[in-house]
Amino acid sequence: MYRTHNCGALRIEDVGKEVTLSGWLQASRDFGGMTFIDLRDRYGITQLVFNAEDNNELAERAQKLGREFVLKVEGRVRERSNKNPNRPTGDIEIEVHTLSILNESKVPPFTIEDDTDGGDDLRMKYRYLDIRRAPVKESLIFRSKLAIETRKYLSEQNFVEVETPVLIKSTPEGARDFVVPSRMNPGQFYALPQSPQTFKQILMVAGMDRYFQIVKCFRDEDLRADRQPEFTQIDCEMAFVTQEEILNTFEGLTKHLFKSMKGIELPDFPRMDYDEAIRLYGSDKPDLRFGMQFVELNDVAKGKDFSVFNNAELIVGICAEGQAETYSNKDIKKLTEWMQRPQIGAKGLVYVKVNADGTFKSSVGKFYDDADLKIWADKFGAKAGDMLLILSGEAEKTRKQLNELRLEMGRRMDLIQEGDFKPLWVIDFPLLEWDEESERFHAMHHPFTSPKKEDVPRMLTGDHETMKSLRADAYDLVINGAEIGGGSIRIHDRALQSRNFDLLGFSKEEALAQFGFLLGAFEYGAPPHGGIAFGFDRLCAVMNGQSSIRDYIAFPKNNQGRDMMIDAPASIDQTQLDELRIDLQKEMSS
Amino acid sequence: MYRTHNCGALRIEDVGKEVTLSGWLQASRDFGGMTFIDLRDRYGITQLVFNAEDNNELAERAQKLGREFVLKVEGRVRERSNKNPNRPTGDIEIEVHTLSILNESKVPPFTIEDDTDGGDDLRMKYRYLDIRRAPVKESLIFRSKLAIETRKYLSEQNFVEVETPVLIKSTPEGARDFVVPSRMNPGQFYALPQSPQTFKQILMVAGMDRYFQIVKCFRDEDLRADRQPEFTQIDCEMAFVTQEEILNTFEGLTKHLFKSMKGIELPDFPRMDYDEAIRLYGSDKPDLRFGMQFVELNDVAKGKDFSVFNNAELIVGICAEGQAETYSNKDIKKLTEWMQRPQIGAKGLVYVKVNADGTFKSSVGKFYDDADLKIWADKFGAKAGDMLLILSGEAEKTRKQLNELRLEMGRRMDLIQEGDFKPLWVIDFPLLEWDEESERFHAMHHPFTSPKKEDVPRMLTGDHETMKSLRADAYDLVINGAEIGGGSIRIHDRALQSRNFDLLGFSKEEALAQFGFLLGAFEYGAPPHGGIAFGFDRLCAVMNGQSSIRDYIAFPKNNQGRDMMIDAPASIDQTQLDELRIDLQKEMSS
Repeated sequence: MYRTHNCGALRIEDVGKEVTLSGWLQASRDFGGMTFIDLRDRYGITQLVFNAEDNNELAERAQKLGREFVLKVEGRVRERSNKNPNRPTGDIEIEVHTLSILNESKVPPFTIEDDTDGGDDLRMKYRYLDIRRAPVKESLIFRSKLAIETRKYLSEQNFVEVETPVLIKSTPEGARDFVVPSRMNPGQFYALPQSPQTFKQILMVAGMDRYFQIVKCFRDEDLRADRQPEFTQIDCEMAFVTQEEILNTFEGLTKHLFKSMKGIELPDFPRMDYDEAIRLYGSDKPDLRFGMQFVELNDVAKGKDFSVFNNAELIVGICAEGQAETYSNKDIKKLTEWMQRPQIGAKGLVYVKVNADGTFKSSVGKFYDDADLKIWADKFGAKAGDMLLILSGEAEKTRKQLNELRLEMGRRMDLIQEGDFKPLWVIDFPLLEWDEESERFHAMHHPFTSPKKEDVPRMLTGDHETMKSLRADAYDLVINGAEIGGGSIRIHDRALQSRNFDLLGFSKEEALAQFGFLLGAFEYGAPPHGGIAFGFDRLCAVMNGQSSIRDYIAFPKNNQGRDMMIDAPASIDQTQLDELRIDLQKEMSS
Repeated sequence: MYRTHNCGALRIEDVGKEVTLSGWLQASRDFGGMTFIDLRDRYGITQLVFNAEDNNELAERAQKLGREFVLKVEGRVRERSNKNPNRPTGDIEIEVHTLSILNESKVPPFTIEDDTDGGDDLRMKYRYLDIRRAPVKESLIFRSKLAIETRKYLSEQNFVEVETPVLIKSTPEGARDFVVPSRMNPGQFYALPQSPQTFKQILMVAGMDRYFQIVKCFRDEDLRADRQPEFTQIDCEMAFVTQEEILNTFEGLTKHLFKSMKGIELPDFPRMDYDEAIRLYGSDKPDLRFGMQFVELNDVAKGKDFSVFNNAELIVGICAEGQAETYSNKDIKKLTEWMQRPQIGAKGLVYVKVNADGTFKSSVGKFYDDADLKIWADKFGAKAGDMLLILSGEAEKTRKQLNELRLEMGRRMDLIQEGDFKPLWVIDFPLLEWDEESERFHAMHHPFTSPKKEDVPRMLTGDHETMKSLRADAYDLVINGAEIGGGSIRIHDRALQSRNFDLLGFSKEEALAQFGFLLGAFEYGAPPHGGIAFGFDRLCAVMNGQSSIRDYIAFPKNNQGRDMMIDAPASIDQTQLDELRIDLQKEMSS
């Protein structure tokens, strides 16, 4: 037996007990004849004592132990003279009489401490050492518990967890699939699912009524920071259900998760329609932890001599409270340059400072007098000491730019309170979005999303422009500016689904080849249904106020899609290629 | 709103309530002016009544509804005059006043009944209709609940569920990998995991202490009946643990699952070492629901004039109780032919019948007199009316053949009691098995399995023959003759692991290329560890006395690895191939 207790278990009540502990050497301190060792395992740290006066040979052996050695010790629990109130086991220590080295360790390439000196690449290569660090270990334990609470809540709501297949069929629409050559069906390929979307709909047709799954999904995309080629969803679907019931069910889930994991009682989630979110925040995932809503100035800023505004589709700004004094001309110049970087691409930035005496200072002061600017300031509700920041141009672009500026000002002004959570349902998304480049419609959510009931007739018969105005029963759950979940009521009518495929530019043949089984299923009594999927990795991170999902994934891949620890992907044998009847293309195999 | 209650909810106490139900039309019966419809959903069936006298137009519409139409009805709950005690809702019916057809259905290609007329292929193609049938639906719900209970038990035992990656690295040893070409790393491939074996060991090195995961695994094998290319494991690993603690922990899990799911209290599991299992049952997964242990006759059957026995390495048989009268000469001839089929390959079959008067009748009567046969019969403990069935030949082959005969006789003699569960730990497996064909050792369990402590010195220094006798800390959980789980204590010492790779014929380079990260991890304080994996699909089936895992998998693949519903795998576009920089080999692309 390797242990009677783990390294986090012993307390003052255990004094006098003979115990066996096993774990890693976290730290070691020599004080003359006394050697103290911190022994660590997943559960905690316990102090070991070796006294040269009692057993010199043992104490000498203890002095030679290195960091991360794996030890088994037997000894007696005693009260510490010098207690450590920051550690649950801090009242006791173990007077060791037997020591076994279970395994040795080379000196780790970085320190196994909360704040490590290891860089990202090194941490990923030696992930087994990185996970020994408390912050990473706790993140993985948090994730495990979050999954348990998710399953608990959904099971109690009669959801059945059904495993859907990982080896499915490639659908070239949407993101790029990972594919898997089939040896038994030469020349053919499986694809890994981007989501179990069609299968969960099939399960509704199959009468499962309420489905969920915590499931791996796969997308072969160029990886932006903090995207992973494989990621995890809480995937859900319900039959005989309205949007209202879905929102209530998953608002309930979210509240349960925050309550059970963080002890936080979230109030009812506000709802905002997509158009309003865009108008007020320039984003379909607004961060409501601070204000600075957009204010539009078209009606009051046009018609003077400032041609930039006169020619703009939209003039819109935010009010940075109390920032008039803070921002020097130089600061504003820097901020303007920040906005002009290619990532944001603003042409310029107009400011208006409200002076203490009720006058104004503005970069467009020569076009607008104080009376004009007073009208602007009133629209913002601005007061003395505030600073308006105004952009203009093409509406959609300008709103996106102002969204970036708002978020940046929120950070600079330190408006985000740690531990604050502001959830929001964004609803009434457009059904289709027109893509200028490819000159075709894309599904805003996905091709199975239902238009709002009142928009169905217009969808079936309307013209091109009408299509742009269709609204869908689609919704996103946003927390603190991050999209946590998204879903929709689905089409359950074959004719309507065919019409949607038409609008999305699928030929009848393509639609049948890719989704024939779903269209077929719709002919055998498909019930009304809808669902949602939560990004599980993201949810973990947001609930802990983290911006990166990396530490909530045990073995993440880097931006080149590589697992640095196992060094994958890698080349495979010609034998394997031959069995699969594939070749590398020439430039590769040469 | 589509419903106030589901179709399994209403009881006699609800009489008088106005309700809304939605579901599928299971069956419809017309009796003059009355139409009765059984409305079905996942939760049950409720009877609807349409009375032409009350509402003729409605009753006429009801008469026209087809099987599997999706309906929404509003009506009043009333007591049935003709109650159905076999149905939880059998005391009531719904007097319908409003009927909406939510969707129509073509006539299903097979009946949606417990015993369907649909063949396997049809059921798989229309799996969404198949799952509507109660046995399949209940199987999937059972699986979901079994997963919940598994997670509950393991979480309470401090196991953390950690998701390991699906896109990993190919290891040509063992079964064949599915591979995934990497677009971002052209010419390189990921592999799908055959199990998370190395990752769970890495997690032990990482200090996670107790890991589990219910996880999809993948093997590109030629599919025998009832194997799937993707299957699910309950995968577990523990650190600082002995074999004894692992067996106790997972015996505890298994008992919990049987208790919570089936209400069955399993007694403590017997243990049998591998050699004994082979000797007594000719199998490392003996079905203990019935006896018929093997009895060896070498010491009593050799030395007479029967050269077949004299030349045999092993003479071994079973006693079929009370079968002497049952089996005519013709029956025995047929049984002998059954044993001689290529699948089994026995050369012949010797029988000895114990007559009521104490005499014997045997196919080898001319070589052995009654006194000889009496000695045999006594070894079997055979009594009047019993029949001995005896095989001979090379030991290993003969035992395998006799195992098949024992199982067949168990079935024929109806010795297996429904609802009987006989779990068993098989322990002390050999570490290595010699493969005559490839002239090399294979790992009996896998290359990470630890030899028994007392065998380590022999493993490090012994000769070829010694290697064959090494025993491993490896164990299988067998229930009713099915292998449910298997595991081992792992090697945690780099030198010993290297020695094992040597014995298995890995070159140093191969070992490093494939498992370098694990060997590396072993240098940074790897703790002693071990684990187990349960076949989750198989466990579901065995717990329900089923021999096929198919109905516990929502969307299984057929023996050609095809998903008949979605028609996968399928060909992909040349664009996709080009992006991945692979080509189909010429005979394929022509």
